[in-house]
Formats: sequence, structure tokens, C-alpha cells
Amino acid sequence: MQKEPMKVETLRWRDGRIEMIDQRILPAAFEYRTYDNAAGVAESIRSMVIRGAPAIGVAAAYGVALEALQQQSASRETFYAAMNTGFDALAASRPTAVNLFWALNRMRQVWQSCETQALPQIAQHLLAEAHEIYAEDIRINKAIGDHGAALLPDGARVLTHCNAGALATAGYGTALGVFRSAIAAGKKISVIADETRPFLQGARLTAWEMVQEKIPVTLITDNMAGHLMQRGEIDAIVVGTDRVAANGDVANKIGTYMVAVLAKRHNIPFYVACPLSTIDLNIATGADIPIEERHPDEVKGFRDCHWTPEGVQIRNPAFDVTPVELVTGLITENGVVGNATLVKVGLGEWMAS
Amino acid sequence: MQKEPMKVETLRWRDGRIEMIDQRILPAAFEYRTYDNAAGVAESIRSMVIRGAPAIGVAAAYGVALEALQQQSASRETFYAAMNTGFDALAASRPTAVNLFWALNRMRQVWQSCETQALPQIAQHLLAEAHEIYAEDIRINKAIGDHGAALLPDGARVLTHCNAGALATAGYGTALGVFRSAIAAGKKISVIADETRPFLQGARLTAWEMVQEKIPVTLITDNMAGHLMQRGEIDAIVVGTDRVAANGDVANKIGTYMVAVLAKRHNIPFYVACPLSTIDLNIATGADIPIEERHPDEVKGFRDCHWTPEGVQIRNPAFDVTPVELVTGLITENGVVGNATLVKVGLGEWMAS
Repeated sequence: MQKEPMKVETLRWRDGRIEMIDQRILPAAFEYRTYDNAAGVAESIRSMVIRGAPAIGVAAAYGVALEALQQQSASRETFYAAMNTGFDALAASRPTAVNLFWALNRMRQVWQSCETQALPQIAQHLLAEAHEIYAEDIRINKAIGDHGAALLPDGARVLTHCNAGALATAGYGTALGVFRSAIAAGKKISVIADETRPFLQGARLTAWEMVQEKIPVTLITDNMAGHLMQRGEIDAIVVGTDRVAANGDVANKIGTYMVAVLAKRHNIPFYVACPLSTIDLNIATGADIPIEERHPDEVKGFRDCHWTPEGVQIRNPAFDVTPVELVTGLITENGVVGNATLVKVGLGEWMAS
Repeated sequence: MQKEPMKVETLRWRDGRIEMIDQRILPAAFEYRTYDNAAGVAESIRSMVIRGAPAIGVAAAYGVALEALQQQSASRETFYAAMNTGFDALAASRPTAVNLFWALNRMRQVWQSCETQALPQIAQHLLAEAHEIYAEDIRINKAIGDHGAALLPDGARVLTHCNAGALATAGYGTALGVFRSAIAAGKKISVIADETRPFLQGARLTAWEMVQEKIPVTLITDNMAGHLMQRGEIDAIVVGTDRVAANGDVANKIGTYMVAVLAKRHNIPFYVACPLSTIDLNIATGADIPIEERHPDEVKGFRDCHWTPEGVQIRNPAFDVTPVELVTGLITENGVVGNATLVKVGLGEWMAS
């Protein structure tokens, strides 16, 4: 019997507003926060109420639509000013995930395509586009899941880092979508989740998602992955990504690079679940991907728990770059791009073909 | 002007009892716990009131001496039974660090050498030996510090993992002793400390020790070390060790292996500060070093902070093994053993020479 995919509604449209699960407090509490304009959505992204590259792309699209709905009775001048401020706030919310900019570009194109219409009509076009980006994201995740599931042998113990799950997308997930699809296809899969300091997306979000669906999940601290690989206890790695450069270099949650280097040493396949919207052909290599540095307090402890003495300097890069040589394959909605193709052809040519 | 080394008294003899800083609650609180028998000391080691391979060796020696003092007015039969129970409890407290067994062996030899004497005399011999192990440890650390300091270039940014400091020894420290000696020798050194989940020895203990002495220290989560190496922000790595096999394989705090693999990739020297008492010639390779698996609760959160949902399995190996090929050199009190010597000659031959 196949399991139904979990119905985690990471974000949902209700009564003309967007509601998001507050991912800062999961799994201790499950609460929705409600937003009705672009500034609010931008703040929800910045403060990580919502996170995960695909999810913040979808959220940003709704942020634009909400701003348009808010301003649809204003003068055209006020509408334009508010919309531009809204776009700017959303674009400034987080720098690394390209899906944010991809979604904002799509929304701007829709606006431009109907800018001569009445404001309420513009707002409705923008809302329809946000709904379409939302629905597309779930379809894309399921296609990624099906392509990725074929790569995992029955019985595979699969490590993932951070949370590239339903909570990181409109639903279903990219990396965790691969696990969901593999299990739906009848494979026995067990998941090893890196806790993913400092925000603990693995311990809090991936573990929670897997427990919801009764997928076996073992939690480790980030520094244990190498030991488990050395002991032959990991068969494959699947992670998400926030931006892939034209040459195939992958930006993802801090710590991904260390996992990839260890995987290479132990000849364990390292896959990246990657919607095409995450590929940025404008960036030649990973060296040019902007890496967000977040607030020091995140490293000093977690939420109300502080364990670090005063007087210590802190570094808090939120992402790192895994060079293409370490990537076994990118799992996209259009199929898997293997390392040989990545290295020989590059993503631009592959996408054009 | 040279700085005075910090006077952290990790453990100290007072009024016929041993007092230890409770390292579970540092840096939030600085408190001593007092023990007067072997069972108490064994529990202090098991629960990590005291930790660090050299420190638990010293503590175990005092545990034996305390038990002898407790039982010195009993019958010889009772004394023997209590002493053997005490030795067993201490030996069972933690499995990986060999210094524990090394210290217990030394104490047993002293006992055997004077076993025909009156019990109070035996107890005094054992106490004198514990004091000698304590004093020796500090002398050894300073010698390691001086040998290691010569390896670090002026201005070096040095990563360390876990805490191999004054708190891990009778005082001064092994890896952190190298930093202390380098600074005492006039070199500008800055320290990058891995926080070291799950027990957070880096964030709590190494950071605290460095702040006490105003040595610049930057704290990162364990998964950030690779990114900093990739960016050229780490010049050397110095860590401690809990046991070194005859072939030079190094057991140390979980996560050390990942750091070593990354260091190799980036051609960064990876040094292990290693008292000779940490070398176990009875173990051929690291594969035979017993790796402690600790309680799952340590991974589910930290102290009263829990962030992991119910229903998740946990792995909690406390150590891992770094193969000798990744070790640039062992820094001992008798000098530095380079990788070429380790690989060609082995530690047995080097120690005999």
C-alpha cells in the first residue's frame, strides 16, 4: 500500500492573506503567522519564519500580489511607489537563494504585461501568477521526486543536510520529495538527518517531517556524518540547493561542502535536488554566488538558550559552495544531469538542448 | 611582555579530597564539585563533570588514592575488595581515552610495589603517585606547547576542535597549550573554535579559556570549518587526542575526522597535540579503538533546551578516528613526529629509539 504524501501546508492563501507555518518554533509549537503586504512577507523571509529556496520564492510572489491588493484602490502613482518599495524589500530579504529573484522577475514581467489595465485587474493577474508559482512548485517537486527515486537502491540509508522538504517548498519537498517518491514506489529508505547548526533545520524540520510520515529517521550532529561514512553506514546523499552556477557549482546550507568532500572520499553518490528555477546561468561559478552572513546570536546558542561566553567573535555564513567536481548529479524536474554532462557541457548548453 | 599562563585549576587537592570544576555548566556557572572516593570520581568522569583525556587520567589516579585513604583503617580484606571495586568503576567510566587506563595501571603498579606495607602507608604512596601524575601532566603540556609553538607561523589563524585546553588536563592544555606557548613566544595567533556539538566543548570551554587570557577567538559551528578553509581563512589545525594507535591513527572528539579530511584537501597542516601517555602501542590501528556511544539526550538538545521531535532515532558516537595519512604530525613532549616517520617507522619504533 502506498502512503499518501504529507499535507504540510508550509504556506496557504486564506481570506485574501497569506499564512505561513512559523518555522522558527517548530517542532515545539505549530503556529501560522499571517501577512497582508510585501513588507510583512519580506520580514517573514528575513527572520526565517519561512525558509528554503523554493518556499521563499513562492512567498515573495505572494508578497508582491498582497502589496498590489493592498494598493489597488490607491492612485496609480501611489500603487507604483508601493509596489517598487515592496519589490525592493523582498529582494533585500535574503541574498543567496536565487529562487527569490526568479520569482520576483516573473511577477515583474506579469505586472509589465498588464500595466495599462486597471489596478484591481493588475492585482488579480499578480495573484493568479503567485497561485501558479505555488502550484507549479508542487508539480516540479513531484517530478524531481520521481526522477530522484530511481537513483536510490532499495534499503538505502540516505543522508540529508538541512531541510529541503515540504517545509522548504510549497509542499512535498525537493530532497525529501525524493525520499517520499522512493517510499511511494515501494522502496525501503531510511533517512539520516544532520541537525544543521545553527538554525537546526535538520533536527527540527526534517526530523519532524519524517516523523509525521513514519519514514525512519536517525538524527546526528553535523560532525558525525564523516564517521558514519567511514563505517559504511551511509549509501547516498541527497540535499537541496539555494543556487546553482552555470558551471554546476552548488550553493547550499553551510556544511554541505564538508559532506560533499567526505562523500567523494568514500565514493558515496552526492545528489542535489534542484528545480530549474534554482539554476542561475548569469553566474559563471560558485565563487560569484553571494553568501549571506547572518546575526552572531544564532551561533551563540539557540533561541533562549545561550552557552557562549562574552568576548568571543562569531562567524555565521549561512551557505557554502560545493564545486561541481563533487556533485554526482543534479536532480531536476526534467531529469537527472550527471557529473559528466555538467563538466563537459555545462548547464547553459544542457538547458538549451 | 609575555603573558602569564592562565591559572585554571581544573582539579585540585583540598583538605584530603579532590575538587573539580563542573564542566557541564561552564561558562554559565563556575563551580567546584568535591569527591572523596573512587565511585564518586568514576561518576564525575562518566557524567563529564571532568573530561579531556589527560584530565580524566589524573582524576582516575586521585580516585584510587581517595579510595585507599577511605579504607586505610579497614581490614586488609575490606581494603582489597574496595580498591578492586574502585579500580573497576574507574575503568568502566569512559572507554575511549587511553590515559584513564594508563593512569590506573600506574596506580596499580605502585600498589603492588608496596602491598606488604601497612594500609596507611600504601594510601600515602598512592596519593604521592597521584600528585606526581598531576605535576607531570602540567610539565608535559608545557613541553608540548613549546614544541608545537615552533610549528605555527606568526599571524597564524589556527582552528581547533573540542577543548584540549587547561580544562582537559591538569592545567595549561595540549592543543591550547601550543597556542599559549606560541603567544608567550611573541607570536600573534588567533584561534578559530569549532563549537563541537553535542557537548559544546568548543563554544563553552575553549572559548571561555581563550577569553580568560584575551587570546583572540572566533567561534563557528562545526559545519563552517570547510567553508573557512575554502576561503583561505585557516592556516593550521591543532587538536588533542584520546588515543593514538601504534600506526599513528588518531581517535579524538567526533568531527575531528571531517576537519582532517578537509584540511588535506586544502593542504592545511593538521597537527595532533599528544602526550606520550595517549599512545597505545597495544592497538595496531584506529579500527580497533573502542568508540564510546553516549546517551541520545545529548543530541536532542543541550541541557534544558530540547528541540528534537519525539519518534526520532539518535546516534551519538563521541569520538572518531583520523587515519595517519591525514596527520601532518604528532606533537609530543619529546618532540614532533612527522607524517613520514609515522608512516615509515611506526610509533613503536619511534618511541623505542
